[in-house]
Order: sequence, then C-alpha cells, then structure tokens
Amino acid sequence: VAELTHLDEHGRARMVDVNQKPPTHRQAVARCAVVTSAETVAAVTASSNEETDVFAAARVIGTMAAKRTPELIPLCHPLLIGNVEIEFTPGPETIEVAATVECFGRTGVEMEALTACAAAALAVCDLCRALDPLVSIQSLRVWEKRGGRSGTWRYVPTGS
Amino acid sequence: VAELTHLDEHGRARMVDVNQKPPTHRQAVARCAVVTSAETVAAVTASSNEETDVFAAARVIGTMAAKRTPELIPLCHPLLIGNVEIEFTPGPETIEVAATVECFGRTGVEMEALTACAAAALAVCDLCRALDPLVSIQSLRVWEKRGGRSGTWRYVPTGS
Amino acid sequence: VAELTHLDEHGRARMVDVNQKPPTHRQAVARCAVVTSAETVAAVTASSNEETDVFAAARVIGTMAAKRTPELIPLCHPLLIGNVEIEFTPGPETIEVAATVECFGRTGVEMEALTACAAAALAVCDLCRALDPLVSIQSLRVWEKRGGRSGTWRYVPTGS
Amino acid sequence: VAELTHLDEHGRARMVDVNQKPPTHRQAVARCAVVTSAETVAAVTASSNEETDVFAAARVIGTMAAKRTPELIPLCHPLLIGNVEIEFTPGPETIEVAATVECFGRTGVEMEALTACAAAALAVCDLCRALDPLVSIQSLRVWEKRGGRSGTWRYVPTGS
Amino acid sequence: VAELTHLDEHGRARMVDVNQKPPTHRQAVARCAVVTSAETVAAVTASSNEETDVFAAARVIGTMAAKRTPELIPLCHPLLIGNVEIEFTPGPETIEVAATVECFGRTGVEMEALTACAAAALAVCDLCRALDPLVSIQSLRVWEKRGGRSGTWRYVPTGS
Amino acid sequence: VAELTHLDEHGRARMVDVNQKPPTHRQAVARCAVVTSAETVAAVTASSNEETDVFAAARVIGTMAAKRTPELIPLCHPLLIGNVEIEFTPGPETIEVAATVECFGRTGVEMEALTACAAAALAVCDLCRALDPLVSIQSLRVWEKRGGRSGTWRYVPTGS
Repeated sequence: VAELTHLDEHGRARMVDVNQKPPTHRQAVARCAVVTSAETVAAVTASSNEETDVFAAARVIGTMAAKRTPELIPLCHPLLIGNVEIEFTPGPETIEVAATVECFGRTGVEMEALTACAAAALAVCDLCRALDPLVSIQSLRVWEKRGGRSGTWRYVPTGS
Repeated sequence: VAELTHLDEHGRARMVDVNQKPPTHRQAVARCAVVTSAETVAAVTASSNEETDVFAAARVIGTMAAKRTPELIPLCHPLLIGNVEIEFTPGPETIEVAATVECFGRTGVEMEALTACAAAALAVCDLCRALDPLVSIQSLRVWEKRGGRSGTWRYVPTGS
Repeated sequence: VAELTHLDEHGRARMVDVNQKPPTHRQAVARCAVVTSAETVAAVTASSNEETDVFAAARVIGTMAAKRTPELIPLCHPLLIGNVEIEFTPGPETIEVAATVECFGRTGVEMEALTACAAAALAVCDLCRALDPLVSIQSLRVWEKRGGRSGTWRYVPTGS
Repeated sequence: VAELTHLDEHGRARMVDVNQKPPTHRQAVARCAVVTSAETVAAVTASSNEETDVFAAARVIGTMAAKRTPELIPLCHPLLIGNVEIEFTPGPETIEVAATVECFGRTGVEMEALTACAAAALAVCDLCRALDPLVSIQSLRVWEKRGGRSGTWRYVPTGS
Repeated sequence: VAELTHLDEHGRARMVDVNQKPPTHRQAVARCAVVTSAETVAAVTASSNEETDVFAAARVIGTMAAKRTPELIPLCHPLLIGNVEIEFTPGPETIEVAATVECFGRTGVEMEALTACAAAALAVCDLCRALDPLVSIQSLRVWEKRGGRSGTWRYVPTGS
Repeated sequence: VAELTHLDEHGRARMVDVNQKPPTHRQAVARCAVVTSAETVAAVTASSNEETDVFAAARVIGTMAAKRTPELIPLCHPLLIGNVEIEFTPGPETIEVAATVECFGRTGVEMEALTACAAAALAVCDLCRALDPLVSIQSLRVWEKRGGRSGTWRYVPTGS
C-alpha cells in the first residue's frame, strides 16, 4: 500500500513533523470554477460597481480563509503567510477563481491555496444562490507549486 | 437585472435581515466528490482501521466547519446548529462526501452544508495529496433543502 | 458609588445574567470618524472602482467583527445577529463610519455596533497609513439604540 | 494620486508581500482616550480592588486582540508577537489607554498596537456604559514605531 | 454494550440532534483543584493587588472558554450562554476553581462548565509553572446540573 | 516572595518578552487520566471500529487545541507548532491521555501540551458522560520538556 504521510504506522492521523526542514520560499496556486446560469453571471457582473463589490468581498473572504487554514484543517501547520491574491474571471456560465498563496516557511502552502480558493468560491455561490439554486463548484485543485524539496510542479490539463 | 438578495440597492454586500422571519426547522444536504486515482482511494480505505481514522477525522473537521460558517462567509448569520452528519462513500476513483445540517432558526442552512462538505472534502484531499497531486473536488452543490418559506427543494441530476 | 452592572458585589467582572429577559428586537447604531489628510481621503476615494473596493472590504470586516464581539469582549453575550450595515461617508479630511446592528435577543447590540464600527475604521486606517501615519479614529460612540426595557435612546451632539 | 500600498494596480485590496524582507525587531505604541463622566471614572477606579479587576480584565482583552489582529483585519500578516503591554491612566474625565506591541518579524506591528488599544478601550467602555451611555473613544492613533526599514517614528502632538 | 449517545449505530461520532427539545433554563457547575506548593499559592495570593489581578485574568479566560466550547469540542452545540461565573478558593497547597454556566437552550451546559473550569485552571497553572513545574490539575468534574429532562443532579463526594 | 515571571513589578499580568531568545527546538509532553467506570471504558473501546473513531476524533480535537493555545491562554505566545501527537491508553477504569507537542521557536510548548491534553481528555469525557456522569479528569501535568535554556526536565512520580 502506498504511503499516506499524514497517517502514522498505526493508521492514525498526525501532523507531519516539519521541524527539521529549513524554511524556504513557498508558493501555490489553486483554481476552481463556480458554474451557474448565464443570467446569474450577468447579475453578478452587471455593473462595474456591483462587480467590484462582490469580488472585493469575496477576495477578503479568501484571504482570511488562507490564514485560518490550520484552524480548519487540523493537520495543517501554522504558517506566517506573506501574500495572498485572489482573482475572479467571469465566463459565459462560469466565474473562475484562482488563489495564490506565498510564505517563507518549513512546509508548502497548497492546502492554504485550496482553502482560500474554496472559501472565495463559496462566497460567490452564496450570492448566486438567490438566482440559481443549482450553482456548483467544479474542479477545485492545485495548479502550481514552487519551493520546498520537490521544487516546481504544474498541473497540465488533459483534454477537457 | 435579476435580484441578488445579498446586495442592497447600491450593489453593496449586506447580511439579509432575517429578524422578521419566524424560526422553523431547517435542513440542507450538500454533496461533492473527491476525485483521485484508484490507488489513492485504495490507500485511504485500505484497512478498516485506517478508513475509520481518516473519515472520523474528516467528519470532525466538517462538523466544526459547519459551526464556523458565519466566521468564514461574512454574510451568513450565526445559527444554533442542532445536528451535523458527514458521510463518505468510496467509489473506484472517487470518495463522495455528503453533509447534512439541521437547525431550528430564521434562515436556511445551505451555506453551512456547503461549507461542511467543502471542509470535509479538503481534509480528505489533504491526505490524498501525498499520493496524488492531481486530486480534485468536483460538483460541490446543494442537493436538498427543507423548511422555511420555500419548503422542500431537491436537485435532480440530469444526464451526467 | 454608582453601580457598574458588569461587576459583582466583590468588584469582580462577570457577564450580566440575561436568562430572565424575554427576547425582543434590538438595534444599535455606532459612529466614528477616520481623520486623515485631504490627500489620503482623495487617494482612498480616487476612482469609483477603488472606492468601492476599499469600502467593500472594510464593510466585510465590520460585519465579521460584529459577529465576533463575544470572542473579543469577554462579558458580551453570544447573540444571533440578524443584520449588519456599515456605511462610509467621505468628507474633506475625514471618512465617517456608521455601523448598524440588529438582532432578536435578550440583550442589546451596542457593543456589537461599537466593535463593528471600530473594526471597519481600523481597516480604513490600515489603508491610509501608507500615506498618512498620523491618521486617527475620533469620536467612536453609540448614537442610537432601540428595543429592550429602556426603549429608544439617541445621542444628541452638543456644540462641537 | 498617491500610492496606497494595500491596493494593487487595479485598485484591489491585497496583502503586501513581505516575503523578501529580513525579519527585524519591531515595536509600536498606540494610544487613545476613553472619555466619560467624572462619576464614571470614579466608579471604575473606586477601590484598588475594583480598579485592578477592571483593568486586569481589559489588559487580557487587549493582549488577546493584538494576537488576533490578522483574523480581524484581513490584510494584516500573521506575526509571532513576542510582547504586549497595556497601560491605563485615569484622569478627571478620561481613562487613557496605551498599547505596546513587540515582535521579531518581517512587518511592523502598528495595526496590532491599534487593535489592542481599541479592544482594551472597548472593554472599558463596556463597563462604563451602564453609568454613562455617552462614553466615547477619542484620538486612537499610532504614537511610536521602531524597527524595519523606516526606523523610529514618533507622533508629535500639536496644540491640542 | 451500554449506549454512547454521541456515536451513531455505526460507531461514528455525531452531534446529538437537539432540534426537537424545547428550550429550558440550564445550569451546570464544574470544579477542579490546581495543586501546587505552599510557596506558590503564597506567591499567587501574596498581595490583594496581585491576587485580584491573577484571578481577574483567569476569570476572563474561563468566561471566554465557556463561549468557545463548540469550537473546541466538535460535538457540542452552539449555545446562547447567558451567564458565566468563575470562583477561585486558595487553600494551603491548592487553588480550587469553580465554574458556573447558565443558558436558556435545548441542551445542557456541562461541557461548557468543564471547559471554562479547565481553561481557568490552565491559566492559573501557567502562572505557577515558573515556581513549581510540578503543578497539576486534579479532580475536574461536573458537580451539579439543573434543568432539562433529567432535572437536578448533584455530585456527592465519597470519603476523600 | 518568589518571582512569578508572568507578573510585572506591579503584579500585573503580562506576556514574557521572548524577542531576545534565539529559536531552538522545543518539545513537551503532558499527561492526564480520564477516570470513569469499567463499563464506560468498555463501551468506549468496545469494538476496534468504535475505538478508532472515538480516539481519532479526540486526537483531532487535541491537535487543534494545541494550535489554539494562544487564543485561549492570553499570556501564551503564538508559535509555529511543528508536530502534535495524542495517545490514548485504556486501563481498567481509566483512559490515559498523553500529548506531545514540538516546535522550533523562542519559547517552550508546555502550555500547548497541557492544553492539547486537556482538550483531548474533555472530548473523551464528553462521550463518557452519557454513561457515567461521575467521569473526571485527574493528574493533568507536564511530564517532560526538552530544549530551551533549561534543557531537559522530567517529572518523577513519587509513591502514588
């Protein structure tokens, strides 16, 4: 059986010991899509004023969630997060969300990027739900990571 | 333009005023799928001991996240959540996650169910990442809600 | 010596017992002013895009802080806050902040309004500091409360 | 238009990237005044027992708030705060509050000092409100900062 | 096997559903003893000033912890806590801690009283540790509960 | 009077200044016993499935509490905790709990180990209470610390 590093030899959840790793600069990007009706995307982005407001609020929410990752996901380590950026890209029936998190530390920030991306997308869903109860979040995953022992890694989408 | 109830007449984010609504029993179910390799699903569910442990931890994480929804999503109201259940169903290359949240209150618990489902799925992803950096969360959405003015609503999957 | 209701007969801090009070609709408004240079007010409100963004973020921060009041101020009771509104009014050398909080509960929401107003003002200060290290918060106080045994009360500014 | 470092080139709120800065010793002092009636100041400071209790509680509240600054103000970085001191100085109709925060880190602690000072002052207001609903917080600002690229800076009060 | 109400029929942790219970007035008292050297008790209670300060701070900490119980213990329900009292009684080589929690709600407050008592005792230990690394917490348990279906219950110490 | 390092010269609570200390590797172990009836221990550990679930949940709770120590105990410093392990050892009428916390930092992790141990034990008590309202927590103390100026220290139980 392949190794799940978050389980000890007895199959019990544990934080991975990162005390021995030297701190390095880390970065991770996570992305997902909020999928909804064209009408709802139009309502969310209707005017520059409304657009800014909705996305500004969701950006704050994602930034906050990145910092709270170790409170939400127990096996994540507390980190001194140095930068968070949240981007929204509206399409015909989607609003794409990208979260970039950086820190100087002993462990990667992929979970922080995933959590920030999920929270920002949930905040957008919260707004869309009044118009479209079918709104969903799709394809939340890590797209890129830099730094640490394993260096740079990028997700290469295949086909769809 | 259709109405986004979380924006006021100036397009500014606001909490919807629920003071006038009578409290009723509310329930919501959200679901998503953690999509990963067959090898990773096998490792996560390898032995009953490990399976229980991983899912027990993720169940706690989802329950906790349901209760913290108003801290994460600013426009959500504080609620006296009365029940949370998190279910995991492993498939060949997926682990399906379902979160059911109930309360007796003035507003629905769909966002709480979505947040619980997302957090439980992120906890499972956190474990899978060591084996499968391509792990993703798919199709996070509300599947069912009961109670409140609009009564019962169910998502009817179409085709795929 | 006049009575401080938050101290018991031994002068020890305590939460006031509100269990016997019937729940009623409560509202409170708090206001303050962020005082800074004309140049800084201009930069913050420079374009409609920037203005919305800055104030949208600060509005989220104030809303969040209202909900977290009992975590920050230990003698405040947990409340099911039903509505929060944060308004910003730029003047020549000030940005006025008003926070309105409503709930249906056993105790007033004045501390929640003060905390929301303070947090939103601190968020605005955080932006202004790069241009004006002298930025200050002035005249943070309750302006209005409704509901509860003592009914409606309004602050009447005198002279200055 | 002058530069607001917390906004990117599109006017969107962001955390300032501090990853490149070397950690140094930082200190900041913020002050404000709780302004209330002479009778209320007397009640708060009536006996040494009561005085100690009220201020001891408010000191804990301010210390706690300093550590929670990045949860309240989204663009603030998590910091390993090393020291917090909160001082109260009663005057005829005021209680002055001073908060000193120190850390060894990549960014200043001015927001932490302002937040600690605001929270400690709000805790004092919470006690005063029973006697004086007009109680207010005045002149909350940074008075001193040390460390970092810009070195030492002091506020020089002018006239009033 | 006797029934553990927090486990479902599959042995999985769950929140007990309290939606069907009518809200009633609930109270619980928990106690424990901080056991340390006579010298340390003397230092903690040395002067009325120091005594008040230490216990005032610990009282705030216990009150805060009572309100945060559902964040710490995942299966506890959010509650609108109406009253918290923390008492300290120094003895020759002990400091006894009693925490009383009250609320009007659908479930008891025993866990809230235990958590408040534990946190207040930990805060006292934190002070004692500099003088006595052997300081311990003993006999933390519920001593009394009132309200709810099972009515009043009292712990009757036997022998020691 | 012996020196309590958490009080300043006026007997006021303060965080100890740790800015001058170099960061080193720190470790602490705390232990306690949940004392209950033989029947309750049997129910908690009845089947391997149930046992894993209960202890897996409590392990998550203890890990989470270790990371939140500075939010609960105001004079504790924020720390970048690198590892947390929680062990449960059932005996005839007890369930022993051991919490080990490690970090690389400027101050020890004894309070973090005590807090993790207390929270994990409270989570076990929460389950036991349905069967045994007399369940108690006994002998919570630090058993071992390593690192820092004072080096390694071990508790040597005497007699009982």
